[in-house]
Amino acid sequence: MKIGIIGSGNMGRSLGILWAEQGHEVFFGSRDAEKGKATAEFAGRGTQGGTNDQAAAFADVILWTVRSIMPKELLSHPEVLDNKIIIDCNNQDIPEGFAYPPIVESLAEKLAKDIPQAQVVKAFNTMAQEVFELAPEPLKDYGVSVFVAGDDEQARKTVMGLAEEIGFLAVDSGVLRNARLVEGLGDFIRLIIGGQKQGVYATISVNVLPTASEQRLGGRQASSLK
Amino acid sequence: MKIGIIGSGNMGRSLGILWAEQGHEVFFGSRDAEKGKATAEFAGRGTQGGTNDQAAAFADVILWTVRSIMPKELLSHPEVLDNKIIIDCNNQDIPEGFAYPPIVESLAEKLAKDIPQAQVVKAFNTMAQEVFELAPEPLKDYGVSVFVAGDDEQARKTVMGLAEEIGFLAVDSGVLRNARLVEGLGDFIRLIIGGQKQGVYATISVNVLPTASEQRLGGRQASSLK
Repeated sequence: MKIGIIGSGNMGRSLGILWAEQGHEVFFGSRDAEKGKATAEFAGRGTQGGTNDQAAAFADVILWTVRSIMPKELLSHPEVLDNKIIIDCNNQDIPEGFAYPPIVESLAEKLAKDIPQAQVVKAFNTMAQEVFELAPEPLKDYGVSVFVAGDDEQARKTVMGLAEEIGFLAVDSGVLRNARLVEGLGDFIRLIIGGQKQGVYATISVNVLPTASEQRLGGRQASSLK
Repeated sequence: MKIGIIGSGNMGRSLGILWAEQGHEVFFGSRDAEKGKATAEFAGRGTQGGTNDQAAAFADVILWTVRSIMPKELLSHPEVLDNKIIIDCNNQDIPEGFAYPPIVESLAEKLAKDIPQAQVVKAFNTMAQEVFELAPEPLKDYGVSVFVAGDDEQARKTVMGLAEEIGFLAVDSGVLRNARLVEGLGDFIRLIIGGQKQGVYATISVNVLPTASEQRLGGRQASSLK
């Protein structure tokens, strides 16, 4: 798969490297072509780098890491995103005292409004970047969830696959409107990480327990959601 | 500990029985004294039953299961709750299409406003009642979280203890304002249970993973938050 990273900070760099290791073609974009190239050089693994425009044109799946910057502001030809999958991994700034405002519209929905012909999918916003250092091994052993919300089922499935192959367990979280709830999970885990001082390795998992009757029949392990 | 259950439906009955099994004195309250007594008779294990007024007067810790009904509406003498711990386990009704409204003030904060001399603690709102059937064994093996938010640290610790002794892992979630985020988790898990059809045994866990350097030193298991 051809994957473009828009804004090559910590999150984009980590995920780009992981996906390149899985055999995907990854292109790191930046406002400054030299910075994009430098990121690719750092990342190695056959990755390329350049401008955000180039990354957007190159890829089928685009990771959008630049919060609250809309494609129409950032790209010369935002229509190159039409019919592509856009992964939004962003969360709001943490307010004083973790007193988050209520989410009346998600960042992902705002992004989707700006590029109505693209398939925006919310994902990868409920873990700190440090967790990617454990991917795909030993992360696989821990059952950390990636919550995936988007209106197009095929796009959700594609992103769920991209999460699973680097060691996460993907949780289909339905339509894009549910990104409001998924962004709420992002707010909550950052409260636990920072406000409650549990550190950057605090993660969220959703598991389905064996039912009481399965228990009586000898039990089985709790399984993570598919 | 003396525990009062206000409103003896499924949630209250299940938790009351579990706490009675742990040796606590449990009193089931209802608007109708006969119904409270019938619940206690069903529950056995030395539990008592009667009116909500009696349950509130009897207990040190009160489980408030009647959503959006305020103590001043329900109790003849709401001041009996002064200096007591009130556990709010409620969630909003599920709207059409799981299109939850943004949470601008939590149910728990509303409850606390009505009884400012009591210690309101948010907890037990992120699992279906059926999960209690697995408590305390084999629930202990699954690391299911109970998220506990309240302004009084000692009250939070008490409720965390009540969660842990029946097989959950308690996650200190800070001040009562954070009940907004915890109620958001409740909304999310009900989306997964009902909207995404994963069933009533879908649960949320927060875990702290071993750090990258701990991994290099041979690793340790992911630990649940305390």
